[in-house]
Order: sequence, then C-alpha cells, then structure tokens
Amino acid sequence: MVVNVATRLLQISEIFGPTIQGEGLLIGKPTVFVRTGGCDYRCSWCDSLYAVLPEHKSEWRSQSAEEVFAEVQRLSNFQPILVTLSGGNPAIQPLSDLITLGHASGYTFAIETQGSVAQPWFAELDYLTLSPKPPSSRQVTRWDRLERCLEIASHGQNGRTVHTCLKVVVFDEEDYAYARDIAARYPDQPLYLQAGNHTPPHLAEKIDITGILERMDWLIQRTIEDQWYTVTILPQLHTLLWGNKRGV
Amino acid sequence: MVVNVATRLLQISEIFGPTIQGEGLLIGKPTVFVRTGGCDYRCSWCDSLYAVLPEHKSEWRSQSAEEVFAEVQRLSNFQPILVTLSGGNPAIQPLSDLITLGHASGYTFAIETQGSVAQPWFAELDYLTLSPKPPSSRQVTRWDRLERCLEIASHGQNGRTVHTCLKVVVFDEEDYAYARDIAARYPDQPLYLQAGNHTPPHLAEKIDITGILERMDWLIQRTIEDQWYTVTILPQLHTLLWGNKRGV
Repeated sequence: MVVNVATRLLQISEIFGPTIQGEGLLIGKPTVFVRTGGCDYRCSWCDSLYAVLPEHKSEWRSQSAEEVFAEVQRLSNFQPILVTLSGGNPAIQPLSDLITLGHASGYTFAIETQGSVAQPWFAELDYLTLSPKPPSSRQVTRWDRLERCLEIASHGQNGRTVHTCLKVVVFDEEDYAYARDIAARYPDQPLYLQAGNHTPPHLAEKIDITGILERMDWLIQRTIEDQWYTVTILPQLHTLLWGNKRGV
Repeated sequence: MVVNVATRLLQISEIFGPTIQGEGLLIGKPTVFVRTGGCDYRCSWCDSLYAVLPEHKSEWRSQSAEEVFAEVQRLSNFQPILVTLSGGNPAIQPLSDLITLGHASGYTFAIETQGSVAQPWFAELDYLTLSPKPPSSRQVTRWDRLERCLEIASHGQNGRTVHTCLKVVVFDEEDYAYARDIAARYPDQPLYLQAGNHTPPHLAEKIDITGILERMDWLIQRTIEDQWYTVTILPQLHTLLWGNKRGV
C-alpha cells in the first residue's frame, strides 16, 4: 500500500507555551498550545483569523506529527504537559499520530473545536471541548455533526475516558438563548458560558477590559435571573492578562 | 438527655447570592455563600475581617440551621444550588444540620477552610477546599490537623464522594516555596495557586487590578520556570469583576 505522506502532514499556524489555558473546563492549567491553520468557519468575531484565512497560508508550516511533537517537547523541556489543540479548526487535521506519540511519553491532549467535523481520533483524546458558535458568529450549527462528535468521544480508546464539555461564547441575548437551547439539548454535558471579547484582534494593546468585565457581569446576572445554576460562567483569563497578544 | 440548643446555633456574618464562585476548583459555578463569623486565624492580609474579629460580633446573627437554610432557599428561589460555606473559619461552626437539611432538598455543599480544625461532618460535604495559609499570612500551619481533615473527607458518608483539593494564596517567593512543599507532601491532591490581592479590603473601589494581574503573570512564569505543570493557577474572578465589594 502506498501511503500518501502529504495527507498526513499537519498545517501548523503556531506552537507556543507553556502558558495557562485561559478558558473553559481546563482554565488555569499549564499547557502548550498547538494551533493548526485552516477553518471551515468564518466567525464574525474570530480572534484568530491568522489561523483561519487562506491568505495567511504562507505563514503556516506543513509539519509531520514527529516534528510537531519534537517542538512540544522542547518547549515543555521534555516534561509531560497538557497539549491543547486549537485553531482554526484542528478537527480538519490528521492529529491521531501526534496524540499517539504524545501519549507514549505521558503527555495529555485537549482539543477545542466547533464540532462541525467529527473525527474517529476524537476517541483518543483526553479532553474534547465542543464550542458550537452562537448566532452572533453568523455561522450555522449542524447538530447532527455535533452529536457525532459526542458519540465518538463516548467510546474512549485504550482504556481512556474522553472528558467532554460544551462551551458557548455569549455576546448578546440571542447568543444567550442559543446557549439555553444547547443546555436543553445536552443536559448531561457540562456547559461553559464565556463572555465574548468584542475588541478587534488587531487592537492587542487597547483591549476594552472594562467592557469585557461588564459583559461578564451581565452574563452572571442573566443566568441567575433564570435560576440557571448548573452552568459555569467564565471570562477568557488570557485576554484579561495579556489582551489580544499572540503566543501567550 | 438535655440538648444544649445554644451550641447548635450558627454564627452568621452574611448570606448572599446567587453569584458565581470566583476562585479555585469551582470557579465560575453559581452559588449562594453562607459566611460564618469567627476565626482561629488572623491572616495579615485577611480580606474578610468583618467575619473574623470579635469586635464585629454584634454584626453577626445567631441562627439555627433551619433559619439559615430558609434564607438560602429564598435567595435561590427554591431551586437547588451549590452552597459555599466560607468565613471566617466555617469549620468552627456546627454545620452538619444545615448540610443534612440542604441535601434533602437537592442542594450541594462546598466549604472553604484553612484546615486548622477537623470536623466529623466534613465527611458529609460535597466539596472540601483546604487553604493552608502561607508565610505571608504570619500564621503557622498545623500539618497534623490538615491531614486529619483530608482523612475524614476520604470517608464520604451516605454514598457521597467528598471532592477535596488544596488552595494556596501566593504573594511572594516565600509563599511560592510553601506551595511547592505542599505539592510534595500531598501529590495526589489537586492544588490551586491563587494570585494574592494586596489591596486593603476597605479600598473597595480603588482596587489595583493591574497589580493583581502582574502578580498572576509572575506566578504563571514562576511555575513554568520550574516545569510545574500539574498545578492550576487562577486569580480571584470576583476581585477582577467587583473589586473588594461585599455581598457579590
């Protein structure tokens, strides 16, 4: 059998860390980020367009799983750490080999994806965060695909449990209603609400922290009004700490 | 048998919420806080002296478990929610009846205590956060008592698991070394580091957010330097959101 090597290469936008995960289930955990290039979505408020738009493709590298893992090991000084697969949409990359390599050395893997593409290797992950995009993103949720992602993750491989959760960025009332709908659809999944960051990505140094904190405050009041006590509400810590700066 | 009713009354500084838990293991979770009055510690940087010092005793209420739970239910609109027992040191209060009452209605209970007083009813909790105080607090840790707390919690009652964790507030290098020592003593316990808030409590509106964020940043860099990847590093969200304001 001829293996098409090219199809197994990963499109990498950036690899950085260790830093802490700034949001969601693993907030505060030290991690190395592997950000892949390319995305099937075009969210109106995307904060990582440099890892999404084809015009940035020349900035991405085509790397093998071995090359990516070597860089992760160098950054973590060969000490096992949580690796966060982000993007773009990392689900459109063949990441299985990287996960296998890392697991063999004690590394663990979390992915952040919108749930628009389900991959068999989701069953090999340690953590799967699905972040379906609310109306303000101007994207359409394919529920069948989101459910397929959860279904795959429910059959953890090699004796592992894939810890799953849902995360919804909320900018306004419409997004909030979308998040409520998701909670009703998937009552057994832990759900994280994240106050949206409305500062355009290029304004790294001028981030409107007061605005973010006010939105966070509104979101807390909104859930309490509804006596919605099973949800978790978090800001993006990295934005509060470092604004929109890249590589942190 | 004559029951001494007075000994079963709780000293209550304040009951407020729902709001979100701003720190540690349950960060971002909606909760009602029950803050008890009285403490066996006098931390140099205590941010809740109004629930600690005897001169504030006249502001506290002596309430039965039934009275406290009625208030919790009113605040949560009779919808089960996580109740966070804080202080002062809530471990010096007879909280068992409150926990029993709440559990019967579907409420869950988390406690935040320094681990200086071990109580049999720790085995009835849902979450036990032990926050031994670092050198900057000028308090002395009694390791035997901390261990007794963990020992009790390891035998969850009524088929419950008591989820335990450790949390250390870090202001400086000495505190950091103390946290490292704790990690070495209790390798199986999840450990949370929390960037200290150095703004005096009475300056509610003038909180030095930049200073807190810089300390958080330093703490992250410090742990990464040591390749300490198993720890979780978090700020106090409520301080970033609301400063030192009470009742939120």
